[in-house]
Amino acid sequence: MTVGRSIRDFAPILRWASRYNGAAFTDDLLAALIVTIMLIPQSLAYALIAGLPPEVGLYASTAPLVAYAIFGTSTALAVGPVAVISLMTAATVGDFADGDPERYREIALALAFIVGLILAALGALRLGFLANFLSHPIISGFITASGILIAAGQVKHILGVKADGDSLIGIARSLTEHASAAHLPTMLIGGGVIAFLYWTRSYMKPLLMKFGVKDRPAAMTARAAPLLAIITTIALVTAFHLADSGVAIVGATPKGLPSLTLPAFDWPLWRALLGPALLIAVIGYVESVSVAQTLAARRRERIDLDQELFALGASNIAAGVAGGFPVTGGFARSVVNFDAGARTPAAGAFTAVGIAFAAMFLTPLLFNLPKATLAATIIVAVLSLVDLKTMKRTWRYSKADFAAMMTTVLGVFAFGVEAGVMAGVILSIFLLLYRASRPHSAVVGQVPGTEHFRNVLRHKVITSSTVASVRIDGDLFFANARFLEDRLVSMAPEGKGVTDVVLMCSAINSIDLSALEALETANRRLKEAGVKLHLSEVKGPVMDALKRSHFLDELSGGVYLSEFDAMSALDHATFHPVAPVNAARNTPSEA
Amino acid sequence: MTVGRSIRDFAPILRWASRYNGAAFTDDLLAALIVTIMLIPQSLAYALIAGLPPEVGLYASTAPLVAYAIFGTSTALAVGPVAVISLMTAATVGDFADGDPERYREIALALAFIVGLILAALGALRLGFLANFLSHPIISGFITASGILIAAGQVKHILGVKADGDSLIGIARSLTEHASAAHLPTMLIGGGVIAFLYWTRSYMKPLLMKFGVKDRPAAMTARAAPLLAIITTIALVTAFHLADSGVAIVGATPKGLPSLTLPAFDWPLWRALLGPALLIAVIGYVESVSVAQTLAARRRERIDLDQELFALGASNIAAGVAGGFPVTGGFARSVVNFDAGARTPAAGAFTAVGIAFAAMFLTPLLFNLPKATLAATIIVAVLSLVDLKTMKRTWRYSKADFAAMMTTVLGVFAFGVEAGVMAGVILSIFLLLYRASRPHSAVVGQVPGTEHFRNVLRHKVITSSTVASVRIDGDLFFANARFLEDRLVSMAPEGKGVTDVVLMCSAINSIDLSALEALETANRRLKEAGVKLHLSEVKGPVMDALKRSHFLDELSGGVYLSEFDAMSALDHATFHPVAPVNAARNTPSEA
Repeated sequence: MTVGRSIRDFAPILRWASRYNGAAFTDDLLAALIVTIMLIPQSLAYALIAGLPPEVGLYASTAPLVAYAIFGTSTALAVGPVAVISLMTAATVGDFADGDPERYREIALALAFIVGLILAALGALRLGFLANFLSHPIISGFITASGILIAAGQVKHILGVKADGDSLIGIARSLTEHASAAHLPTMLIGGGVIAFLYWTRSYMKPLLMKFGVKDRPAAMTARAAPLLAIITTIALVTAFHLADSGVAIVGATPKGLPSLTLPAFDWPLWRALLGPALLIAVIGYVESVSVAQTLAARRRERIDLDQELFALGASNIAAGVAGGFPVTGGFARSVVNFDAGARTPAAGAFTAVGIAFAAMFLTPLLFNLPKATLAATIIVAVLSLVDLKTMKRTWRYSKADFAAMMTTVLGVFAFGVEAGVMAGVILSIFLLLYRASRPHSAVVGQVPGTEHFRNVLRHKVITSSTVASVRIDGDLFFANARFLEDRLVSMAPEGKGVTDVVLMCSAINSIDLSALEALETANRRLKEAGVKLHLSEVKGPVMDALKRSHFLDELSGGVYLSEFDAMSALDHATFHPVAPVNAARNTPSEA
Repeated sequence: MTVGRSIRDFAPILRWASRYNGAAFTDDLLAALIVTIMLIPQSLAYALIAGLPPEVGLYASTAPLVAYAIFGTSTALAVGPVAVISLMTAATVGDFADGDPERYREIALALAFIVGLILAALGALRLGFLANFLSHPIISGFITASGILIAAGQVKHILGVKADGDSLIGIARSLTEHASAAHLPTMLIGGGVIAFLYWTRSYMKPLLMKFGVKDRPAAMTARAAPLLAIITTIALVTAFHLADSGVAIVGATPKGLPSLTLPAFDWPLWRALLGPALLIAVIGYVESVSVAQTLAARRRERIDLDQELFALGASNIAAGVAGGFPVTGGFARSVVNFDAGARTPAAGAFTAVGIAFAAMFLTPLLFNLPKATLAATIIVAVLSLVDLKTMKRTWRYSKADFAAMMTTVLGVFAFGVEAGVMAGVILSIFLLLYRASRPHSAVVGQVPGTEHFRNVLRHKVITSSTVASVRIDGDLFFANARFLEDRLVSMAPEGKGVTDVVLMCSAINSIDLSALEALETANRRLKEAGVKLHLSEVKGPVMDALKRSHFLDELSGGVYLSEFDAMSALDHATFHPVAPVNAARNTPSEA
């Protein structure tokens, strides 16, 4: 192959396809089969969360997987509809669809397409770092709260009643109003499936192993429990004509795959979807990359973060073109894919073929599937997202992080997913701004017997009565420019006899123009008060930058190679060099 | 006086009023007289920029000054209407007033009131640090662009034509359309005043000094040139009945002061005004504080930044109650106040009395004032805001800062003030996020003959083939958590024989939960690859926090007091202690 490096980076499939062989094929095919069996009920269920007909979940599990197989860098990640993104889709699309199901599907397609464009654009601009601004406590709080919100939203299907609401309070109120209409057969099906699924989690694998099934096949079979529940409840509904007695069923589902279509370009709608789409894109990306990195670490593989943006972008564009809705990498199915032995992204493509097969031939069998069964699989799946352990741990580790987490949780409960996550993001950025505006700083003095200068609050040090010195631990830039100016000026309080202020620059790697101007202002303010400003231990690149300005000409004091040089030059009486051998003098002006 | 400290902090007037004496009174009164003479034309002119009748400018220069005298901490700051804030007021109010002048005034009042509430709230919450996120290049670009935009917006009054537009392009297009209707007498007045004002700037003071006037009185008299221009052109219009021949005049102006009223509470309007009001508040605050700090430095006084928020808040609330519009501290008038010898904030209160006198008795004299005269004083005033020197200097110092500046300038020109400054703020926060997501880091090795470990790229150092060590220079938190994880894992590339990775923590002052989880993940990923993770030089508070988590139990490697201890323990063959006397061993685990 003569494909250049850049093209292979763009489509990693070109890198591994040429080495693809029979052994990898067999492994991938087996993994794909197992994931397909797990993904069919998940796809149907998550479509329900998104407020879409169940077959749309299958469509969302075909083309996007092929796109990821071409562009993705994880050998184990399985993409498709996931619970939290489906919930966000429902919250977004519901706002614009006016209750029209046809319109609802169109908007879901457009949303997937826009999410894809945003992800691809972020990847092209190498803006993956934006995902850093969802802090872990906020993501964790968001997922826990979403899990509870999703489970609450499914209770109506288990009760067999109509209810609505975007927030926990709204859902609870609506459920209370309709509770008296609860439908017993539906509740029995839903409750039975929930009980069965919880039972299989704990007992099915040991039971199978008792019957001689080996460890891994037993675990894999236990994963098929939701499919078993679906088959069983379809059989029950069919045998006892439960649909006639009021059990809500999925009903007629189109056979085959939808033809590929570009979503209609409707600028006012697209503009309105941009904000929610950005949120979905970022949350989907963060979740997916976490899963991919966890699994890649086990095989010592690398995930390319910018390429992942692009690959998830392609997957969502594919979802928007092929009749789906927003997708991302799912945790449970990726772990199954990994455990089942998937060796290349081809496993994802094979899974897509399996799902496409299901969409083409099996949908008529879904006619009698009770909605309560899907709701039950959702409830069991999402309640495992609820993570009280992390909450407890956060509380113990940091009250500030806990506050951010609870803001997100309560935001989601009270105002819904979008408002909740926005509250979390705004709080994250706010905390960042706050932190950036006050870097750590320390007044320093000489550690006796050395030429080291350390924090006066932490060490027994020698200080001068006329020369005050402060070390600022961080780059100087616009966010802390005012802090810098105030800190320097405050080093020489009126009437205390301070004649010189030394800024120890050992921890400063850059100074932007705002900080430079703050330095100039501080220099001028100190000068007007009769105090000289000096710098010590300025690093090379910072010195180069300062030389491009007039600051060094205006500086009232000097620039010293080391803090000791500065202090001993300015207060010779107090600071003495260490004699005779002095390793500390080997300190160049770079830390 | 027995007033407690907290109350005196809240209203600094209580601190200086008890020491107030005759000498201070005389100085303040003289300064107030001079500022009043300067402020009358400015107030009239800036009301014109804000799209309000000229007398509203006078109202905005009364009560707000009294409020600042009570709550402010600067002895020299003169508040009132300023050009840039007036422009922002016009841009905001114009969007909501639907061309109804009565409604326009009401909204301007509400806007001032909301700006005041926001400033007071920021002060109460001690959120003054938010102002840090307007970087100097962005503020400088914004003011330069606003100056040009304001001047362009006044050209219509000089030409005596009707024109409109919010952006430079819009104004230019509108002026071109109407240029053929230009009115010669108006142009002569406007052009004459501009020429006169520019002449006085350079030649009036020397001329006065030639006639024996002393330096300071000569400078002060030159400052009265705009008032002279106003008197002269009123006389011309009156003498030659120029209003009849088409020169636009100010016309009937109400006499007296408006009664105090609370703006009507109209929630949809208030909510819509919140965003623009926040911008006006922050920009006004930044400008005002810069002026106050510059002048305070000359007298070695201190400005209390949070109290200033509160004082400007009170001034704007006063403006909203007393018939004005948003105000802040102005540069030129504060310098005049300072130079004229103002000793306490009482000078501001005396200025307010002067302006109130003008509003009560002099407004009938303004009937024949040509609008072209006011426009001319505006143009001369705002063109001095255009600061090409800073632009050049920014270009030389930093291309990134220059890009931020030009984004703001072009944003203001193309889309108006609000969009321009928002583009600047978003860019600022974006740059901050970007910077925060990748702290400086360095692979380190031993400086021969010492126990110091330094950047391998900058020093000739000894490194190990099996132990890789990296120093990260900055606090670890959510914004750089992913960077941290990747950096640590990338230290042990597959097949290079690295068995241990040491994170040197000398520059790390805090680790939040997101970063802790990133450390845990990196530890797990490295462990799965058979590599141990160690920490060195962990500071006390960081160690305390780590002990509250399970991280230290899970850590595959150890925690070492110094980098040298870690490296020599892990690769004894490569790293040797320095003999015999070794000052560097005196290094405690705090930097």
